[in-house]
Amino acid sequence: MSTPTLKNDRFLRALLRQSVDTTPLWIMRQAGRYLPEYRATRAKAGSFMDLCENPDLACEVTLQPLERFDLDAAILFSDILTIPDAMGLGLYFAEGEGPKFESPVRNMTAIQKLSVPDPEDGLRYVMDAVRTIRRELNGRVPLIGFSGSPWTLATYMVEGGSTKDFGKVKGMMFDDPKALHLLLEKLADSVTSYLNAQIAAGAQAVMIFDTWGGVLSTEMYKEFSLAYMERIVAGLSREAEGRQVPVTLFTKGGGQWLELMADTGCDALGLDWTQDIGEARTRVGDKVALQGNMDPCVLYASPETVKREAKKVLDGFGEGAGHVFNLGHGIHQHIDPDKVKVLVDAVHEYGKNG
Amino acid sequence: MSTPTLKNDRFLRALLRQSVDTTPLWIMRQAGRYLPEYRATRAKAGSFMDLCENPDLACEVTLQPLERFDLDAAILFSDILTIPDAMGLGLYFAEGEGPKFESPVRNMTAIQKLSVPDPEDGLRYVMDAVRTIRRELNGRVPLIGFSGSPWTLATYMVEGGSTKDFGKVKGMMFDDPKALHLLLEKLADSVTSYLNAQIAAGAQAVMIFDTWGGVLSTEMYKEFSLAYMERIVAGLSREAEGRQVPVTLFTKGGGQWLELMADTGCDALGLDWTQDIGEARTRVGDKVALQGNMDPCVLYASPETVKREAKKVLDGFGEGAGHVFNLGHGIHQHIDPDKVKVLVDAVHEYGKNG
Repeated sequence: MSTPTLKNDRFLRALLRQSVDTTPLWIMRQAGRYLPEYRATRAKAGSFMDLCENPDLACEVTLQPLERFDLDAAILFSDILTIPDAMGLGLYFAEGEGPKFESPVRNMTAIQKLSVPDPEDGLRYVMDAVRTIRRELNGRVPLIGFSGSPWTLATYMVEGGSTKDFGKVKGMMFDDPKALHLLLEKLADSVTSYLNAQIAAGAQAVMIFDTWGGVLSTEMYKEFSLAYMERIVAGLSREAEGRQVPVTLFTKGGGQWLELMADTGCDALGLDWTQDIGEARTRVGDKVALQGNMDPCVLYASPETVKREAKKVLDGFGEGAGHVFNLGHGIHQHIDPDKVKVLVDAVHEYGKNG
Repeated sequence: MSTPTLKNDRFLRALLRQSVDTTPLWIMRQAGRYLPEYRATRAKAGSFMDLCENPDLACEVTLQPLERFDLDAAILFSDILTIPDAMGLGLYFAEGEGPKFESPVRNMTAIQKLSVPDPEDGLRYVMDAVRTIRRELNGRVPLIGFSGSPWTLATYMVEGGSTKDFGKVKGMMFDDPKALHLLLEKLADSVTSYLNAQIAAGAQAVMIFDTWGGVLSTEMYKEFSLAYMERIVAGLSREAEGRQVPVTLFTKGGGQWLELMADTGCDALGLDWTQDIGEARTRVGDKVALQGNMDPCVLYASPETVKREAKKVLDGFGEGAGHVFNLGHGIHQHIDPDKVKVLVDAVHEYGKNG
C-alpha cells in the first residue's frame, strides 16, 4: 500500500523545532464529550470500552473534531489503560466513578505473574484503529499515538482504579520498592512495544501521558516515573516512512522537573497551564519543543477572552520554532464547540507573526 | 485573667528561625477522623458544623491528639469556610460530597451585597473556641489560628461547593475580573479581621491555607491569590502577649512560587510533599522558615520506613534553625494512630542533631 503524502506537516515540524508558516495546534481530548457527534457515536457504541475496541467507531470519533475545526493533528481515540487490561486485570468503567480493575495487583507474587502483552494480539484493536484512521486521514494531518506512563498505569493497577490519596501504590513504593520496580519494568517494556507497534501501524508522533507523576516528591519522581519514561524513549523507533517520529512527554503538575524531562532524549514536553511558557522555554533552552499550555477554563469565557488568552500563550512562547499550541489539560465536557473554533482560528491567525 | 507561661515554645521559635533543642512538629488535620476519639466526639456532636460551632467540643477534639502524641502545637478545630457562612451563603455538608453553599455568588450584584462579617458576632463561636482551647491548654503548647485564603474561599463561594474544573470561578476571572476582585477584596478584609480576632482571643501563630492557588497560572496566581494574601499579612497584628505572632502561608501545589510567597512579609511557608525541602531552603534563603513536608502516604508504610522518611526530610532541610516538621498535606483518615506516634518520636529524636 502506498502512503499518501502528508498535506499538513506543521505539527511534526514544530515538534522537531523546524520552521512553520503558523503555530500548529491540537487539543487534548479533542475527540470527546463536548462534541454532540461524539456523544451520538458513543451512544451507538455502548460502553466507553466498546467504543475504544471498535476500530471503525474509534476512527469515526477521531476524525470528528477535524471536520469542525482546522486542527493540525489527529490523536488516536483510545484509553490509557489498554495495557493493564491486556495484561488481564479486567478494566471496566463504573458509571460516574471512572476506570476500575477487577483484579488489581498488590504484591510481588501478583506482579511476577504479569506478562508483557503482544500489541498485535491482545491490543490488536488499537493497531487496527491506527491503521483505519491513517487510511481515512489520507494524508490530511499527522496521527498521534499515545500511552500512559508506567507510573501512571501502575497507580491504577495497584489501587484498582482512580484514587485521591495513592495510599496503596505509595505504600508499595515505600515498603516494597522491589515489587513496584518490577511492575514498572514490565510496564516500560509493554509501553515501548505498544508505542513501537502504533508507529509501525502508522502513528507519526507519540506522546506519553504521565498523568500522576505530579503526586510524587522529586526524589520519587526521578526513581519511579522519569527513569521508566527515559527507558521507553530510548527504546522507541524514532523514524517511519522516511520521517522522524517525535516523542512528547507530559507530566501533569511536573513543572518543577522540566529540565530533567528535557534530558530524557524526548523531542518535546507538554506543559500544564500552571507554568509560564516563556519561563519554561528559558529553562529547557533548545533541547526540546514545547506543547501547551492555555488553561482549559479559558474556554468557558467569552470569544474575545479566548482570543486574548490564546495570544498571551503565543506571545509568552515568543518568536522562533518549537511551539505546538494546546490546552494545559484535556478540554472539559461542558465547553461550547463554537468556542473551540474561535480558539483554533485565533491560534492560526496570531501564530503567523510568531 | 493572667496568661500561663508557655512551657514549650519550640514551634514559635522555629517559625521565627530561632534556635531550638529539637525540631518541632505538628500535623495538618491532627484532630481528625484517623483518631477513634475524634470519631466518638463527632458522633456525639451531630454534624461537622455542629462540632465546629460548639466551643467545648471543638476544644475537646483540638486537645485529643496532644493526649496521644508529643506534638509541639495545637491547631484550632474549625473549617476554612466559616467566613462565607457568616456572610450568609448557607454552608452545609452533603454526606460524602464535601462542603456546599445554599446561595453561591456568581455576579457583581450578588458580590456587592456581601458584607465583611464581625468576628465577635457571626463568628463568635470560633473566638469562643480559641478562648476555651487557650484556657484548657494552660500554656502546654502554642495554639495556631487559621483561615482559608481569599482565592480559596472565592472558589467555593462562586462554584457553590467543591469543584474539579473551577469553570465558574475561572469564567468570572477571565470575563468579569472586576467582580472577582471585589469579592477577593471583601474576603481579604474579612480574613484580616478574622485572624486578628483569633489573635486577640489567644491564637499565638496563624496560618493561611491557599488550598486552590495551585490551579492557577503564574500570572493569575499573582493577581488573584498572592496579592490578597500579601494584603492580609500586612494587616495582621504581629504581636500579642509580648511575643511575636508568626504568619505562615501555604499554597498547595505552589512550589514554583516560593520566592514570590517569601516576599509577602510572612514568617514561614508551608511546603507540600512534591518539593525538595533542601532546594526550597536554597531558594528562599533566610527570608522565611519552612514547614513540612513529608508525603502523608508515608504513614501507610512500616514504622521503619516512617522513621527513614522522616529522617530524609530532616536531613533535606539540613542544619540550622527555621524548620517545623509537618506532613505535606493533611493526614489521611485511614492512617493508624500508632504510626503517628512513631513519626512524632522519630522527629524529636533525629531533630536533636539538626
